[in-house]
Amino acid sequence: MKTVIPVDLPQNQYDIKIATDGLQYLGAWLSAIGKSGKVLLVSNPVIFKHYGDTAIESLKAAGFDVCQCILPAGERYKTLRSIEKIHDVAFTNRLERSSTMVALGGGVIGDMTGFAAATSLRGIAVVQVPTSLLAMVDASMGGKTGVNHPQGKNLIGAFHQPSLVLIDPNVLATLPGREFRAGMAEVIKYGIIWNEDLFDQLEQAQRLDQMRYVGQALLHDILKHSCQAKADVVSQDEKEAGLRAILNYGHTIGHAVESLTGYKLVNHGEAVGIGMVAAGAIATAMDLWPQTATDRQLAIIQKTNLPTKLPENLNINDILPTLRSDKKVKAGKVRFVLPKRIGAAFVTDQVTDDIIRSVLEEMF
Amino acid sequence: MKTVIPVDLPQNQYDIKIATDGLQYLGAWLSAIGKSGKVLLVSNPVIFKHYGDTAIESLKAAGFDVCQCILPAGERYKTLRSIEKIHDVAFTNRLERSSTMVALGGGVIGDMTGFAAATSLRGIAVVQVPTSLLAMVDASMGGKTGVNHPQGKNLIGAFHQPSLVLIDPNVLATLPGREFRAGMAEVIKYGIIWNEDLFDQLEQAQRLDQMRYVGQALLHDILKHSCQAKADVVSQDEKEAGLRAILNYGHTIGHAVESLTGYKLVNHGEAVGIGMVAAGAIATAMDLWPQTATDRQLAIIQKTNLPTKLPENLNINDILPTLRSDKKVKAGKVRFVLPKRIGAAFVTDQVTDDIIRSVLEEMF
Ligand SMILES: NC(=O)c1ccc[n+]([C@@H]2O[C@H](COP(=O)([O-])OP(=O)(O)OC[C@H]3O[C@@H](n4cnc5c(N)ncnc54)[C@H](O)[C@@H]3O)[C@@H](O)[C@H]2O)c1
Ligand SMILES: NC(=O)c1ccc[n+]([C@@H]2O[C@H](COP(=O)([O-])OP(=O)(O)OC[C@H]3O[C@@H](n4cnc5c(N)ncnc54)[C@H](O)[C@@H]3O)[C@@H](O)[C@H]2O)c1
Ligand SMILES: [Zn+2]
Ligand SMILES: [Zn+2]
Repeated sequence: MKTVIPVDLPQNQYDIKIATDGLQYLGAWLSAIGKSGKVLLVSNPVIFKHYGDTAIESLKAAGFDVCQCILPAGERYKTLRSIEKIHDVAFTNRLERSSTMVALGGGVIGDMTGFAAATSLRGIAVVQVPTSLLAMVDASMGGKTGVNHPQGKNLIGAFHQPSLVLIDPNVLATLPGREFRAGMAEVIKYGIIWNEDLFDQLEQAQRLDQMRYVGQALLHDILKHSCQAKADVVSQDEKEAGLRAILNYGHTIGHAVESLTGYKLVNHGEAVGIGMVAAGAIATAMDLWPQTATDRQLAIIQKTNLPTKLPENLNINDILPTLRSDKKVKAGKVRFVLPKRIGAAFVTDQVTDDIIRSVLEEMF
Repeated sequence: MKTVIPVDLPQNQYDIKIATDGLQYLGAWLSAIGKSGKVLLVSNPVIFKHYGDTAIESLKAAGFDVCQCILPAGERYKTLRSIEKIHDVAFTNRLERSSTMVALGGGVIGDMTGFAAATSLRGIAVVQVPTSLLAMVDASMGGKTGVNHPQGKNLIGAFHQPSLVLIDPNVLATLPGREFRAGMAEVIKYGIIWNEDLFDQLEQAQRLDQMRYVGQALLHDILKHSCQAKADVVSQDEKEAGLRAILNYGHTIGHAVESLTGYKLVNHGEAVGIGMVAAGAIATAMDLWPQTATDRQLAIIQKTNLPTKLPENLNINDILPTLRSDKKVKAGKVRFVLPKRIGAAFVTDQVTDDIIRSVLEEMF
């Protein structure tokens, strides 16, 4: 199975290729987009152990001169120090403006490699080879790159579009189940905010909690619809001036939950799942979409085995101030993305504290 | 005296304002381009001592909330470490996407502040307030930003256009004479490659070696013509695909001289002066422009009190390999910018080693 999704931005055109066994064509496809010469592959030890050889052999077979930078796994290494390590390998190996960096990994490796490429020789090409479901459907596309700062996540960064996104669904075979479910939260999000067909497919599936229950055909469709959704939104609003905000569906409450649980107990996808349950209930409480829609969304989230309740030790009195301290708050008004119908969403700052509070009280 | 030069790029439009006593209008002009809220001013101790108060008072009077980051002076601090310091001040003071960074300094402060702004919150506005002649006529415009890496100068960087360039010629009063002359080398360059009128004005001046001999009116004209030249070239070729290469006139031999003297004995402007003498002589040796033009250029460089001879301890046998190791070399061919006539230049890789050698031999 193979699907190509073209992304058309004013300054950049590139393809998202979704292809079973695609990893072994990495070198050939890099050549096909006109690349040659040096490639710096960035990965982490776990992912490199599984897929490093296939990637490197493919690149070498296509005539590329390959060097590599293997960074420790984990969000806590998503720092400027890691970027320095990539720069060191890049410049010691004399990368040129025509050279390419390849990110082989999840969102952490993708964000860092993209940022290192954005800041090397004032911008060299980066190819994203996402290996987590979250990176496949979200982080690898759209050009947001960066690292964390002690004062906050992703504060250091730049926009830098990839030259190619290569998705080989096979690599998900080794992804831990919890990471798979976290990625599914973003998939469900696209169903609600953008694509009713995707929502219907998710609704009809038996189980969504593990890759092996999903099956190749449905997985391919999920990837295709999700990437297309993100590509559509990003091409209409590359630099987050307006529409792109709907991608934050489930993320308003989600971010608060993540931050109040110290980014440990609940992971990003789980928090987004909880946030979508809350946003759906808020929309219903405001008479903006029917209770049946909220229920259908809930059923899909449950089928994915994502949490749908707030963590017990969370205090509602902490959530409201946390919402207000979010960097996207304008003039003290919390902005919510709410569904209008299945497949469409909008941004509003008209949600009252009372509604938020009464919805959250029902979520323990 | 006041001149406004609009710079029109596909994605960015901004003004270069050249204005006597302009520094005190910094705040007002920032407001005029729609800025408000937080400003992070970056400078070094010497420059901040002279001009920090005026800049900060002007910003505060216009209602800005100002914080500052004062970095040690000197090219050796143009590193990622200094960028981290700017990020620390930026995020501790909770800069937002609508905030602005202001670079008050020479090219070192300008390049670093531009890069810090490019990499904060995926790109916030930067205003360049250049205080050296080189920064006024060259570094502050065009959007190249970055820092050095142990493997080479400016290897880490990004394109990030300023939102405003504010040039107050008065601040040159405290610039050391040698730095003034270094900037004049780039001014002479624009006369040769782009603007015959500028060349004529330089030719008619009595002395060009010190700011106080140049006089306010000529200085204003020099700034105006130089900035216009750079703005013209950059707007025709923002990302250095073609035309922009002519800005490297004098820089081929110049870079080799800088690098072979360890970036110490000869500064950048001095090296460019020597490089222009060489490039002129090469063009004459190839029958591309007349001996009289080479002589007229030489006279201006001498009047600026810039060196016109190669450093005595330099060995010609070292220069040729150094030219070939330059990162801009393609397929082993050294690319030279040569004048066609006064006010126009072109790029060629047709200069033979024999010609280079015979020209350089005459330059001791
Ligand atoms: N740039 C964007 O637009 C964007 C969007 C969303 C998220 N992000 C960023 O992405 C990051 C989260 O991404 P993530 O969830 O992929 O986290 P991650 O990169 O840390 O990967 C999660 C875990 O799965 C492992 N892993 C990944 N692929 C594997 C595979 N095929 N087999 C075995 N193990 C594998 C990783 O080693 C890691 O331990 C965050 O830093 C977030 O800020 C960026
Ligand atoms: N971005 C670009 O397009 C571009 C173009 C050319 C050069 N550059 C960069 O610019 C840098 C060189 O710039 P520069 O020559 O301005 O060096 P600089 O910034 O180091 O300034 C030179 C010296 O003059 C001092 N100084 C500056 N203004 C002063 C003033 N008004 N009064 C008193 N002292 C003053 C500085 O403190 C410093 O000691 C290099 O790093 C180079 O790579 C960038
Ligand atoms: Zn998310
Ligand atoms: Zn120069």
